[in-house]
Amino acid sequence: MPMKGYVLQDIGVAEWRDDLPIPEPDLGEILIKPVVVAPCTSDVHILETMAFPTLQGRPLGHEVAGVVAAVGPGVRHFQAGDRVAVPSAIVNWANPMIQEGYDKYDQLSSYFLTDPRLGGCFAEYFLVKDGDMNVARIPDGVSWEQAVVCTDMGTTGFEAVNWLHLKYGQSVVVYGIGAVGLMAICAAVLKGAGRIFGVGSRQVCFDVARQYGATDLVNYRDGDVSDQIMELNGGPVDTAVVCGGADISALAEAVQMVRQGGYITNAAVFMHDTEFVLPNASWMYGTGDKTIRGIGTRGGRAFLERLMTLAKYGRFQPELIVTHTFHGMEHLPEALSMMGGQVRDAIKPVVFF
Amino acid sequence: MPMKGYVLQDIGVAEWRDDLPIPEPDLGEILIKPVVVAPCTSDVHILETMAFPTLQGRPLGHEVAGVVAAVGPGVRHFQAGDRVAVPSAIVNWANPMIQEGYDKYDQLSSYFLTDPRLGGCFAEYFLVKDGDMNVARIPDGVSWEQAVVCTDMGTTGFEAVNWLHLKYGQSVVVYGIGAVGLMAICAAVLKGAGRIFGVGSRQVCFDVARQYGATDLVNYRDGDVSDQIMELNGGPVDTAVVCGGADISALAEAVQMVRQGGYITNAAVFMHDTEFVLPNASWMYGTGDKTIRGIGTRGGRAFLERLMTLAKYGRFQPELIVTHTFHGMEHLPEALSMMGGQVRDAIKPVVFF
Amino acid sequence: MPMKGYVLQDIGVAEWRDDLPIPEPDLGEILIKPVVVAPCTSDVHILETMAFPTLQGRPLGHEVAGVVAAVGPGVRHFQAGDRVAVPSAIVNWANPMIQEGYDKYDQLSSYFLTDPRLGGCFAEYFLVKDGDMNVARIPDGVSWEQAVVCTDMGTTGFEAVNWLHLKYGQSVVVYGIGAVGLMAICAAVLKGAGRIFGVGSRQVCFDVARQYGATDLVNYRDGDVSDQIMELNGGPVDTAVVCGGADISALAEAVQMVRQGGYITNAAVFMHDTEFVLPNASWMYGTGDKTIRGIGTRGGRAFLERLMTLAKYGRFQPELIVTHTFHGMEHLPEALSMMGGQVRDAIKPVVFF
Amino acid sequence: MPMKGYVLQDIGVAEWRDDLPIPEPDLGEILIKPVVVAPCTSDVHILETMAFPTLQGRPLGHEVAGVVAAVGPGVRHFQAGDRVAVPSAIVNWANPMIQEGYDKYDQLSSYFLTDPRLGGCFAEYFLVKDGDMNVARIPDGVSWEQAVVCTDMGTTGFEAVNWLHLKYGQSVVVYGIGAVGLMAICAAVLKGAGRIFGVGSRQVCFDVARQYGATDLVNYRDGDVSDQIMELNGGPVDTAVVCGGADISALAEAVQMVRQGGYITNAAVFMHDTEFVLPNASWMYGTGDKTIRGIGTRGGRAFLERLMTLAKYGRFQPELIVTHTFHGMEHLPEALSMMGGQVRDAIKPVVFF
Repeated sequence: MPMKGYVLQDIGVAEWRDDLPIPEPDLGEILIKPVVVAPCTSDVHILETMAFPTLQGRPLGHEVAGVVAAVGPGVRHFQAGDRVAVPSAIVNWANPMIQEGYDKYDQLSSYFLTDPRLGGCFAEYFLVKDGDMNVARIPDGVSWEQAVVCTDMGTTGFEAVNWLHLKYGQSVVVYGIGAVGLMAICAAVLKGAGRIFGVGSRQVCFDVARQYGATDLVNYRDGDVSDQIMELNGGPVDTAVVCGGADISALAEAVQMVRQGGYITNAAVFMHDTEFVLPNASWMYGTGDKTIRGIGTRGGRAFLERLMTLAKYGRFQPELIVTHTFHGMEHLPEALSMMGGQVRDAIKPVVFF
Repeated sequence: MPMKGYVLQDIGVAEWRDDLPIPEPDLGEILIKPVVVAPCTSDVHILETMAFPTLQGRPLGHEVAGVVAAVGPGVRHFQAGDRVAVPSAIVNWANPMIQEGYDKYDQLSSYFLTDPRLGGCFAEYFLVKDGDMNVARIPDGVSWEQAVVCTDMGTTGFEAVNWLHLKYGQSVVVYGIGAVGLMAICAAVLKGAGRIFGVGSRQVCFDVARQYGATDLVNYRDGDVSDQIMELNGGPVDTAVVCGGADISALAEAVQMVRQGGYITNAAVFMHDTEFVLPNASWMYGTGDKTIRGIGTRGGRAFLERLMTLAKYGRFQPELIVTHTFHGMEHLPEALSMMGGQVRDAIKPVVFF
Repeated sequence: MPMKGYVLQDIGVAEWRDDLPIPEPDLGEILIKPVVVAPCTSDVHILETMAFPTLQGRPLGHEVAGVVAAVGPGVRHFQAGDRVAVPSAIVNWANPMIQEGYDKYDQLSSYFLTDPRLGGCFAEYFLVKDGDMNVARIPDGVSWEQAVVCTDMGTTGFEAVNWLHLKYGQSVVVYGIGAVGLMAICAAVLKGAGRIFGVGSRQVCFDVARQYGATDLVNYRDGDVSDQIMELNGGPVDTAVVCGGADISALAEAVQMVRQGGYITNAAVFMHDTEFVLPNASWMYGTGDKTIRGIGTRGGRAFLERLMTLAKYGRFQPELIVTHTFHGMEHLPEALSMMGGQVRDAIKPVVFF
Repeated sequence: MPMKGYVLQDIGVAEWRDDLPIPEPDLGEILIKPVVVAPCTSDVHILETMAFPTLQGRPLGHEVAGVVAAVGPGVRHFQAGDRVAVPSAIVNWANPMIQEGYDKYDQLSSYFLTDPRLGGCFAEYFLVKDGDMNVARIPDGVSWEQAVVCTDMGTTGFEAVNWLHLKYGQSVVVYGIGAVGLMAICAAVLKGAGRIFGVGSRQVCFDVARQYGATDLVNYRDGDVSDQIMELNGGPVDTAVVCGGADISALAEAVQMVRQGGYITNAAVFMHDTEFVLPNASWMYGTGDKTIRGIGTRGGRAFLERLMTLAKYGRFQPELIVTHTFHGMEHLPEALSMMGGQVRDAIKPVVFF
């Protein structure tokens, strides 16, 4: 029996197909029936550039919550009907680097593997390898919207803030307050940040940033961001996280505005040709003890379950970034096009299937 | 010109005196005129046992916010009129252990030094050594009540939670929800805790605990605490902080209820003869990777200023634990007696001078 | 075809049997042919108490290096003939706690599982589950003796020192300098310890301790250990690791001799009924910032491979603790009896099959 | 009574003067009579560029060990005649950032302050502010050469390695094996590094690198350094520390050769106009979890005393980098010129006064 999916056909071309085989879950695998998915700016990027050629001919999509449709042999923790969410990074946990505390090495999704049964989640069914480790149970009391927001926006924003080594009351700049940056604001509040600067330009984002706990909103159209923040703060800040900007210069500015001994993380993906140029003076000729870490999103069932636990207990409200809710799979292309940046009042659309 | 103060005369005897010399600030010292003070259970303990004999003949008290009355030569950061708060632990920062990251070694308060100019803050004036490092500026927008709560309850509760090494969404048991325990709940929320169990017995504390973010309230009169929590949680918790209990067995119970690899901190002072007996099975015969740390309160201007910054930006509401506010120095004995435990609806009284 | 093994028959009774079935490696499993094994004090303990009833009727033993005899389906990293060593803790790496950085939860060895194909390594063949993650490749240039010493003595001693959070030049007390304690001395040198006190009583251990880098040797028969060390050191030490002693009081003494803010780890297994009694004064009534962690040995291929890498590059000489080398399986009972403590010049015997 | 000193007169001009006033130690200050000094490449740089204009008219020099000549009022820990060494970074420890664990903010040496009593150590006397915190006692058994090497080469190399977060057995590349890089090799061995690659070009440095524990020596004249190391190692390394190279591209190469999730520190000072250009691919478009930290040397009595403790117990031999020993102050210019790079067999000269 075939299934329907929204498939990457060629550079810039995605199409509905209804002849896709429903994957059969093999050893340790879990088959999921999506209930809600969300498009991501990287879906747009992947569509436009076909950055991951293995995806050609397969469904797009990597943000999903749904129900378990079937489990393969050896799956211990899940059964059909369970409410689950899937981290956007699907990792091979049978990998010695895991034992070293580094859990991002060996990716098992359709972006990296040629197994034709794998694909994105913009389809009626979606297969996850190493399911016991890569599928997260949605706690009671957590909604579908909350869950799907956590799968990628949450895991990225929280991971980026994690490496800021925040101490109670320290200051943070969140440079770029789209969906990931807004999650980073929540993450900063929940690591004890005091003053939080949100840098963006759109009112819809400023409004949510304020609700999430940003204390100062800075518009990058009002002048040099570093200057604006240094003036507001009366000097450099403790930490900064870069969550967006097509332009890698955001990172150089972040290094500029952070004090000696402070931390900068990058959660943006700089896919273009631009190199990162660090002005020598801004990190004190190499001696300013400024730490720069470019992080990747974090996978794993445990991390995602912990984030959803935070939502369950009301520590943060991931659903506030959902500006548009569609009902019906057929609205996917419209939702996806919103992430291309044309719709000024959109942060994150979700699509219920 | 003499000043008035509430002086520890003998075991169990404190008296008002109005013949105390006003201390003259010497090199690096700051003289403070208290605006608000708070009595502490340790004041009661010190009064009853005279645990610190050097304090005899001097005013009691170590929780205070006020204004700078005068500065000694060499003080760089403060001047008369500044609104300030003083950490309960007054430390010698010219001490090589500071360079090792351990900042609790060498205490400079009247509890430890015989310098007759030093004394507690239950007096019209109060002298602080190494003032630039031991006096904290109160940020604009932070009230006197907020500031005084941070000086000891805050610095202790937040320090204890700091060493739990919390990850987003992990569970915490706060064992003892008096003033310090309630601050620990705030600290846990601001380190990303998910489920938070508060253990106590009084309704007034349960109410504030709930406001601060406790998700489950456990009454130790309802049976074995460890059993109650393990049942609610469906198994052991990630971390626990012990913030009270006359009885050191709270610590053993905490070790019992924490999972392998989890963290337990102790913020209570066990001044009595009881030893800490750790049941061998509860930490898996020494092999369970459970970490136990008994912490002391943390001093220093920087830490206290960061806590008050959190209050400034509304990250927590320290003032909610102030159940009784007195106006007039003369109410100090009454406020102090409340900390002896007779008043069931008292958490923390403060006294404005 | 049956195999031979040295089997735990009953409390206090172990016997050779030659009718054991050779296990067939199933999915992900690796079958190993031991080349060298080492008996451990816990083998003696297990034999005397049958602490792990699941082991009855199966071979004893958990320290082994050998060659891969066969691999089950799905094994990716090993093949027949590979030189390998096996960490004494065989862990289930398909376990969400792994994602939390805690890798000791879910044990897969014969001590914990009833699968009759599992058993100890005192046999002609030895089966390891989740082989890609639980079997370590022996680097070129590392000898069989070096490898087998690392599997349990190394992984325990190094793990215990790891949690001392040593800074360059700090002092360490290693309390108990049997095989694990001697490995802890190596581990301390390789974490930058300065002064290292070794506490024991036997000359053979003192000699190796000196070669490994201990600077001071203390005999517990010469008086109170804490007093001796405080006098030599001119005050308390920075850290201590407890690696032995039938008596849990070693741990209380360790807490006594460590300075405020210092770290104590326990690598001993206290299987007896004695509880750990911590004198209240020695950790400053709960406020001395002393951290106590009772650690379990650490498993995993990556950790063991890193330890063997240290041996490869001459950073330490694990083989120096091998005081007796036997050739022939039949010498196992004699070697095992040495660990019972009757042979004064024995540290660690090994038996080549 | 005047004293003699080797004074920075103008850009490129240093001269002996014998009319300098001997500084009088004021509050907390310590006057030191140098016994041995060492010139540093930064002395050459400062002489050539006058990067610190406040130094004009004052003696050069910042690496020194000697005896206390006199102490100012308030000095508690030292007295005339004590053998001491002085960290190259002289810090103001009465600085709230110290309480935050960042101890490099507020410098008190002649490079930063205009107080005419301050100057470098290339003089008969040398004044140190905040002496109890900035002067380190030389342990018995540590030689003058050992001490002076630790003051800057040691504190820089060890600090840089500290931030690599090394785990037992991990691999390190030390890029640049002049004096600081050689100290970094020692530091890496003493943090448990396994394979250590030393990158340089001079035989004298290769020889000491080998003695210190480097396992592989790479000549940057033999081709692309990153390629050479990746080939030797069979893939990327765990960590790298950049300790030299006039060219900031060393840092980009280091990022290139380090694996995902690895650490890179920079201990070189890049004073020239070159910016740091990070090729986008080498850190995986910002998502590779590679951490870059540019560190400054670390001051403080405690750290330097710990390093000298390591020398005392034979954990490393700092004196091996001393290739030239001069006796007599008058040899200073000759020794200094060696650091300009003309003498191929020089690593570090020292001059006894």
